[in-house]
Formats: sequence, C-alpha cells, structure tokens
Amino acid sequence: MALAEPLVLYTAKICPYAHRVELALAESGLKKDKDFTRYEIDLKNKPEWYQPKINPASKVPAIAYGGPKVPGDQPSPSSTKIAESLVLLEFVADLFPNTSLLPSSPVLRAKTRFFIDAFSTKFTPASFAFISGKGPRDGLLNAIEKIQDLMAPSGFVIGDGKEFTTADAAIIPFFARMEVGLKNDLGGFEEGEGKKAWEALMTEGRFARWRKYWADVKARESFKNTFDEEYIEQSQRSRWSKAREEAAAK
Amino acid sequence: MALAEPLVLYTAKICPYAHRVELALAESGLKKDKDFTRYEIDLKNKPEWYQPKINPASKVPAIAYGGPKVPGDQPSPSSTKIAESLVLLEFVADLFPNTSLLPSSPVLRAKTRFFIDAFSTKFTPASFAFISGKGPRDGLLNAIEKIQDLMAPSGFVIGDGKEFTTADAAIIPFFARMEVGLKNDLGGFEEGEGKKAWEALMTEGRFARWRKYWADVKARESFKNTFDEEYIEQSQRSRWSKAREEAAAK
Ligand SMILES: N[C@@H](CCC(=O)N[C@@H](CS)C(=O)NCC(=O)O)C(=O)O
Ligand SMILES: N[C@@H](CCC(=O)N[C@@H](CS)C(=O)NCC(=O)O)C(=O)O
Repeated sequence: MALAEPLVLYTAKICPYAHRVELALAESGLKKDKDFTRYEIDLKNKPEWYQPKINPASKVPAIAYGGPKVPGDQPSPSSTKIAESLVLLEFVADLFPNTSLLPSSPVLRAKTRFFIDAFSTKFTPASFAFISGKGPRDGLLNAIEKIQDLMAPSGFVIGDGKEFTTADAAIIPFFARMEVGLKNDLGGFEEGEGKKAWEALMTEGRFARWRKYWADVKARESFKNTFDEEYIEQSQRSRWSKAREEAAAK
Repeated sequence: MALAEPLVLYTAKICPYAHRVELALAESGLKKDKDFTRYEIDLKNKPEWYQPKINPASKVPAIAYGGPKVPGDQPSPSSTKIAESLVLLEFVADLFPNTSLLPSSPVLRAKTRFFIDAFSTKFTPASFAFISGKGPRDGLLNAIEKIQDLMAPSGFVIGDGKEFTTADAAIIPFFARMEVGLKNDLGGFEEGEGKKAWEALMTEGRFARWRKYWADVKARESFKNTFDEEYIEQSQRSRWSKAREEAAAK
C-alpha cells in the first residue's frame, strides 16, 4: 500500500488512543519512516508548536495529511490536520478501501462501528474505574464478558472473524495496557486486586473466548511492532508506585 | 433511491437521536410507507417485544434491515437489528454512497466525523445543562459559537457548504428542540432565561452565521417533513410546567 500524500502521525507510546491509529496504519501495510512519519510527542513536555499548529485540543493522536513532505516538527500550514482516534481509524480505512479494515457490506460496517461504541461505553469506563481504584474488580470482569459476547465465535471481532477490522484496532490498545497493569498489580486498587483480576481472566471458563482472542492478537505482527510492553510497564510502575508510597506515608 | 432490502425504522417524534436518522433517510430520497416503514415507539409505554426483539438497550432509534417484508410490530428474526444514531447515519450513507451524505474525499469524510464528535462533546452537554437548569446560559451560547466556528462560511456545515451531510443530520434535531425550549421558555432554568438566550441568538452579531444556517435548515424539505414543532412544544410544556408547579409548591 502506498499513500498519495505525505502523512505524519503524532503519537505517544503510552497512549491507547494513539496506538489504535498505529495499528490501523500497520494493518494497511504502511511502514514507518518509509511510508509515513511517526512523530513521538512527549506528553509531559509537549513541543510548543503542537497545540497551535497540529491539534487545538493538544492531544495525541493527530495526523497531518497532504502538503509538502516536511519533518514532523516543522508542520506545513497546507496539510490537513485531523484529530480523534475514531475519526482517524475511519480515515485510514477510507484511504485504503481495499484493506479489510472496514468490510464492504453496509451491515458489517455498521456492526464494526456498533462494536466500537459498545466497547467505549461499557469497557472503557469500567476499566478506568477499576485501575484507578474507584471501581470493583467485578465491574471490569463483567464488562469484558459483555464485550466478549459481541465478538465473532473465533478469530477477530467482526463477521466470520477472518479479517482484522477497525474494531480490533480500537480495542487492542486497551487490553494490552490492562494486561500490563493487572499482571504486575499496577493500579490504584488495593494490593493484590490486579493480580486476582488477571488470574480470573487467565483461568475462568467464562473468559475462554477472550483468552483465545488475546493470544491471537499477541502473535500478530502489527501488534508486536506497535507495542512496547517494557516501556508501558515502566511508566505504569513509576505512576502507581509513587501513588502507593504516598498513600502508605499518610 | 430505492433500497435493496426492507427497512423498518423504530423512532419517536420526541427523540433528537432518532430524528437524525429520519433526516438522513429523507435526504436519501426515501419516502416513508413507500420505501421504508416508520414505526413510532411510545417511549412512555414501550411495546414488550421492543427490547428483546429489536434493541437490548431499549432505546430509539433502531433499524431492522433485511429479511422478509413484515409490519413493524412483527419483526422477523432474520433481519439485522442496528442501533445507535451515529452508527445508523453511517449505515444510511453506506447504503446510498451516491448521495451527498458523506463526501467521497477521505479528508472531507474525516472533517464530517470530527465535526459530529465536536458537537457531541461541546454542544450536547452544555445544552442539556442549561435546559435542565444546571448550567449557565453563557455555557450554551459559547458552545454554539464554538460549533459555528467549525462550520463552512455559508450553506451547510462541511466543505464548501453546498451539500447536506451526516454532520447536518446529526446536529439539526438538537437545534430544533433547543429553539422550541428557548423561544417558549420551557426548561428547568429560571423563568425568562430561555427567552434571553433565544434573544441573544436572534440578535447578537456573533451568531450571524448560526442564524443563517438555521434559516436555511428550516426552509429545507427534509426538515419540514420530519419535525413536528407543535408536538415537541406540547411535550416540553407538559414536562417543564409540571416541574415549575412542583418547584413553586415547595
Ligand atoms: N478522544 C481522544 C482522546 C485522546 C487522549 O486522551 N489522548 C491523551 C493521551 S492518551 C492526551 O493526548 N492527553 C493530553 C495530555 O496528556 O496532555 C481520542 O480518541 O483520540
Ligand atoms: N446513544 C443513543 C441515544 C438514544 C437515546 O437516548 N434515545 C432515547 C430517547 S431520545 C431513548 O430511547 N431512551 C429510552 C427510554 O426513553 O426508555 C443514540 O445515539 O442513538
């Protein structure tokens, strides 16, 4: 796949929303540096041109598309700037209508979008609540079960499960960060709660479909090339161990 | 425009989300009764088959698409059931790729979706807050100004403003219900606050673009055929005058 125009993706390794777009670009067969520019934004120290020139909301991900080929830190006023991860997933699918990112049938396209909506309204809030220590373990586990019920019986999420779609790109980054948090017990929850949740996911019969999905994803090239587990673990560790120390000092 | 398969829209006159889909179908040239079935759901007394057979979330809008041609209250298990207004706008645009509902350029499609996202995160919460008496008039007015800044200089919302897109379908139902509430001072706000907000919208220079947009919309056939102003006024009146009486009785 090749792009008609230059594309710069503004992203941050840490960010699940940005990771969605990296997955979609990888699944379209684009190689970073060769086919598009990947520009890492340090969210703790954002370059001062980022908000005025790329995204007024000052968030990643964002794409600059078109205009002359320029380095990421010298954006051209003549490129189009686009933000919001779900808008960008559709954008990548529109740029590459012949990939599997969005099925061609209107009904399957609707199911793909409905799935993403269900994930955003059911999984994301339950997961943020548990990880930050404000919601119960069962809230997270039940949300995963609900999402699982909407998945194809095997393979990827949509239709017959044979094709990777934007629905997969939308959810994988959140599961990946969840795994790191639970496995290493990193979060605002009580000590041991994360590990218990991971244990449930890894052993209970009701999560068999999810486990298979997750094993398939972890073996996929696009995932391996876009997820830096060690980096995520470090950053979660420094975030949450500080919080635990502060709590313990009180 | 004709549909390849039977389509039943489950809707309710009162509901802005459902109105979005009615606009999109009308803009695709579909006529109710002839090209599709419009089935009104009484939200205060929902038919008992609605939740199990059409939408597990028990909300309108929903579409049943495909299967045999059946009356709305006898849904076939072999049709596909689709919910969520924004998913349905994309679905209608996918069914009719040759209408203007979604532009063909990937960049303009992204702008259409980004506009809808901005409306959902900026206008909708500010408007619900003001109408329910929990947010300031300026919150609503500033949100309208922000949305206005994202509109084409004239005509419809996206690109050169020449074409009606899903961005217009997504926002019109909310402006229409807002007009009725403000003009008639119907809401949870203090008496007179609604009229003041409407006065500002109708006279202040900063809202000139919005006023022109709104006049264009009100002259449009698809709007006139899908909005029952009198019905909305009655229902807002009965909702809010009851609340005012209760507040006064305290
Ligand atoms: N709704 C946005 C959310 C993006 C978002 O929240 N990004 C975070 C990082 S994960 C961000 O850039 N936050 C701004 C900051 O950290 O300053 C999307 O879907 O793209
Ligand atoms: N997110 C949904 C919201 C739809 C919605 O909230 N519909 C309301 C009426 S406006 C509804 O059916 N509520 C259920 C009820 O009243 O029982 C969408 O965009 O379609």
